[in-house]
Amino acid sequence: MATKQTIEEGLEFIPKFDDTGLIPAIAQDAKTGQVLMSAFINREALDLTIQTGYAVYFSRDRQKLWKKGEESGHLQKVEQILVDCDQDCLILKVTVDAGQCHVGYQSCFYRALKKDTGKELEFVAEKVYDPKEIYKK
Amino acid sequence: MATKQTIEEGLEFIPKFDDTGLIPAIAQDAKTGQVLMSAFINREALDLTIQTGYAVYFSRDRQKLWKKGEESGHLQKVEQILVDCDQDCLILKVTVDAGQCHVGYQSCFYRALKKDTGKELEFVAEKVYDPKEIYKK
Repeated sequence: MATKQTIEEGLEFIPKFDDTGLIPAIAQDAKTGQVLMSAFINREALDLTIQTGYAVYFSRDRQKLWKKGEESGHLQKVEQILVDCDQDCLILKVTVDAGQCHVGYQSCFYRALKKDTGKELEFVAEKVYDPKEIYKK
Repeated sequence: MATKQTIEEGLEFIPKFDDTGLIPAIAQDAKTGQVLMSAFINREALDLTIQTGYAVYFSRDRQKLWKKGEESGHLQKVEQILVDCDQDCLILKVTVDAGQCHVGYQSCFYRALKKDTGKELEFVAEKVYDPKEIYKK
């Protein structure tokens, strides 16, 4: 088993998958720094991401591999993969076109908690596409 | 139970804590956009974060509340809390001083996977402080 020193300060990539075989991955726009989404990756998805250069996640809902954009066309070209100190979280720095969230926004983080409330949200972005046009039945 | 529509397009903040009572939270530098760390928050930590204006997480290792910087002094002043489409992940936009990672770097994401390797990391940042000076025994 790798030591804390090896994990934190070493040059070996030993991502820590959790009990269900997943590691969280944050997709961040390589150009603007905007955080686009947070999802999970398993070993197979990580290997495919590295091999193909495009982000592949594991959908917990659908329990299957999910190449981002396979349905919508909004692929994520992976420029860089970062790992954190304890190697239990990844950042994918990605190049993207407009509209990364299935709801129609560029980022999934399109709402913020209103100041001085603990319960109320406000929109902080505008839709960049109409999901009804993209996700046709 | 809230509908998909309410969760994704509503103005009610209904963060989805997982089976262990936690929701992942990404700390992002409000000024530079740099992702600093990823951690977990439980209901109590979230309430304290909102009430105090400083980031409080829940440490899975130590199984207790963890006010970021309580030991190191590197507090995170929370400027904005964002939530994603399905309300199962948060971003804390924070104002910070130098050195957010306990290993000595500004961000926990100080290593990247080397191009054309699936196993080898390279450092992409330099230390901004000496942790031995901060975390004295």
